[in-house]
Amino acid sequence: MRRPALALLTTSLLLAGGFANAADTGIPATAVKTAEQLRDKALHDDTAYQVVKSLTTEVGPRLAGGPNDQRARDWAVAKFKALGFDKVYTEPATYPLWVRHHESGSIVAPFPQQLVLTALGYSPGTPKGGLTAQVVAFDSLAALKAADPATIKGKIVYVGYRMQRHQDGHDYGMGSAVRTAGAVVAADKGAAGYLLRSAGTDAHERIAHTGVTGFRPGGKAIPAAALSNPDADQLERVLAYGKPVTVKLDLDCGIVGEYTGANVIGEITGKKYPDQVVAIGGHLDSWDPGTGAIDDGAGIAISMAAAKLIHDLPQRPDRTIRVIAFANEEMGLWGARAYADKHAKEVANFMLGTDSDLGAGKVYRMSASVKPEARHAIQQIADVLKPLGVAYDATRPGGGGSDLGSMHAKGMAALTLDQDATWYFDWHHTSNDTLDKIDPRELAQNVAVYAAWTYMAAEADGDFGSAPGAFAGDGAED
Amino acid sequence: MRRPALALLTTSLLLAGGFANAADTGIPATAVKTAEQLRDKALHDDTAYQVVKSLTTEVGPRLAGGPNDQRARDWAVAKFKALGFDKVYTEPATYPLWVRHHESGSIVAPFPQQLVLTALGYSPGTPKGGLTAQVVAFDSLAALKAADPATIKGKIVYVGYRMQRHQDGHDYGMGSAVRTAGAVVAADKGAAGYLLRSAGTDAHERIAHTGVTGFRPGGKAIPAAALSNPDADQLERVLAYGKPVTVKLDLDCGIVGEYTGANVIGEITGKKYPDQVVAIGGHLDSWDPGTGAIDDGAGIAISMAAAKLIHDLPQRPDRTIRVIAFANEEMGLWGARAYADKHAKEVANFMLGTDSDLGAGKVYRMSASVKPEARHAIQQIADVLKPLGVAYDATRPGGGGSDLGSMHAKGMAALTLDQDATWYFDWHHTSNDTLDKIDPRELAQNVAVYAAWTYMAAEADGDFGSAPGAFAGDGAED
Repeated sequence: MRRPALALLTTSLLLAGGFANAADTGIPATAVKTAEQLRDKALHDDTAYQVVKSLTTEVGPRLAGGPNDQRARDWAVAKFKALGFDKVYTEPATYPLWVRHHESGSIVAPFPQQLVLTALGYSPGTPKGGLTAQVVAFDSLAALKAADPATIKGKIVYVGYRMQRHQDGHDYGMGSAVRTAGAVVAADKGAAGYLLRSAGTDAHERIAHTGVTGFRPGGKAIPAAALSNPDADQLERVLAYGKPVTVKLDLDCGIVGEYTGANVIGEITGKKYPDQVVAIGGHLDSWDPGTGAIDDGAGIAISMAAAKLIHDLPQRPDRTIRVIAFANEEMGLWGARAYADKHAKEVANFMLGTDSDLGAGKVYRMSASVKPEARHAIQQIADVLKPLGVAYDATRPGGGGSDLGSMHAKGMAALTLDQDATWYFDWHHTSNDTLDKIDPRELAQNVAVYAAWTYMAAEADGDFGSAPGAFAGDGAED
Repeated sequence: MRRPALALLTTSLLLAGGFANAADTGIPATAVKTAEQLRDKALHDDTAYQVVKSLTTEVGPRLAGGPNDQRARDWAVAKFKALGFDKVYTEPATYPLWVRHHESGSIVAPFPQQLVLTALGYSPGTPKGGLTAQVVAFDSLAALKAADPATIKGKIVYVGYRMQRHQDGHDYGMGSAVRTAGAVVAADKGAAGYLLRSAGTDAHERIAHTGVTGFRPGGKAIPAAALSNPDADQLERVLAYGKPVTVKLDLDCGIVGEYTGANVIGEITGKKYPDQVVAIGGHLDSWDPGTGAIDDGAGIAISMAAAKLIHDLPQRPDRTIRVIAFANEEMGLWGARAYADKHAKEVANFMLGTDSDLGAGKVYRMSASVKPEARHAIQQIADVLKPLGVAYDATRPGGGGSDLGSMHAKGMAALTLDQDATWYFDWHHTSNDTLDKIDPRELAQNVAVYAAWTYMAAEADGDFGSAPGAFAGDGAED
């Protein structure tokens, strides 16, 4: 959820005509021309598809700290090297280690029936033999918040919010709040367990959407799981009979210690200002039921492929293109926060950045948080992206994406490149997050967007306003 | 797969003008009018939806001989009685008891990854600890049949046939042949195990389609399972690397004895010829991963609701309407065969019949196997069904459906009422076979069809040609 940034709105309108002052940041005409060539070449380049195919086929699910965590990092190092990146390295990130061994659930009474569900990240397990309790149901997070704890104590709370489909995916704001805050509210009110209707826009798949809860190590926590949408329908139908409904949860999962993984980083080294970087990326971890194709193999693939296209130019760009494959985004942005903490002091060297983490649908909108004097350069980028169907919305801030948002919060100038998320939340965080959900042409459009803007930012005359504490009021983060 | 019946074609064309001889079977005008009223009332009646909602919600999965078998029969007896049927009884059916305890699978090498699969009915289990073997792949049943057994011996055979979507669902002929015959061929050639790409038309769901194999008790059998379509894609991608691929199957399932269930039967007793019956129905069992909504809760609901509408008329029809909820259709038509064996000698009393077992999509086509002198009555039925979008194809035989096909094979005159199966095989035999897949309006259209034709057949002046051994050459069964 983002608020329009009114200060930027005013500035952008003043500059909408494209008049640039001498002090303004601009992109040289030769760089614009090269960016257009990169854009057009990217549309016919299948590197990104080959990268995500390789990741999902050869590694597969990548639960942070799980059996594939090291395999995924080895894969990323090898892939960066195979693509010819100038520099490949890792930076450690430490986080709680949550494991999932087993999960099942059923309606016990009045009508016994298995339920398809999935434990939420950071959920503790149930006692051996399972947790059996009566269900108390709410249709929204607000209703749960308003409930008398006496009606909840010792019961399994169920919240049946139905996430709605939108191009920009904004209802995930509420969907994920039901998952994260809902579990915390239920625990605080004395619930024995927590169930939600999956935060997903599919209505008919017996496939549950996992995701992290709001529990954190050391805090109060109760077993928490998401029902598939048809199973939520089933539970609601049974509840509608008006008899007490008892559910059994059997979850073998929980936090078992700490794990040190790593962000894996590849660079195309800038020839003129090697220490100044344009930052892109995605997250290398995924949820475990699927193979992490759209979340976020696509982001890894888009950023690697965009940088590879720039790598293949006759000469290196002026500044460094840094592709960061972040560790453990899913359970709390652990890689991103480790990265931002480590690099906060260098934030002025991060010219412009954003990662890709909303699947493989086409980019349809761009916005930016930059200094006013860089609006002209952003307009130049927008002009190059326009033929790809990307509309520039100067009234909105740029947030930097889910992971590089942490660097934006430190003061990095940032873009937001909104992808069409119409179908994304059908598959998000489920076993259905597999390669077949990616349209290679839509993926290539993303690469075209990233190759073009990344190159232009790397070639800009001037900067975009990155500085410690810059953009604190842009509204990109609520 | 059905062949056009040329003899019937000629006859039907002669009678297409609607001229009836005195010896012809016909439907009295008052009965036609009542049938039209039943038809129109059915479109606004939600009994069928309430029945299938009740069955799937209160009972759920109904694997033949499984924990819900008795619950389902109790439900059916209670539902027939609650709907006011004049007579409710059961007739036993005995069959092999196959159980499913656990199933999992994975690619072991070169790229370890879990596979979503489901054991096939009558598959034996793997040895404790699983079966691990190299995969040998074929793209069709024909290719497997042509293969040298030396290339297969000791390996896990995989057949990757992709079932195609058609309105009449005819490619299930090949899809199910890969599942049934493919497993037998593989076993005969010395394979250690058998895998197929699910016989389903969904392409993107991590949900596998179960179903029976061709194994029979006492015959040669090997562990056999179906991969979800995305998992079949994954296996094929890994195979395309050209390295040996090893898969592990871990199936805990098998035939453990014999079980005696029952067909559950409800009747609206005919006032004039109570011993003459019009037979409809569906099968009460379902596969276990889903709740058997479309397969075949829908058929049970359609036939119960159609008979209930006739029950609610001011007086009983001339002949008995018999609704049969068949036992264990899924693992080899055991209920249907027990029924036909028991009632073969009374076949002449079965005026006309067909069951409903292709989901809840609209009926779009009707055909019939009747004596030539009953074509006029069939045309009268067709005229009443026409406003529902049902086209009468006089060139095709009527098969009686999957279960009442067994009575047709004994000589019962039969209809075929083809339903739109465009989407049916996306969900068929999977965990996705749940209530939300049923459109109440399409279900009601089916009820309108069944109520109308059933009533007309029950009120006919004359018969439809049922006799021992009749219709043997009609091509309805290959």
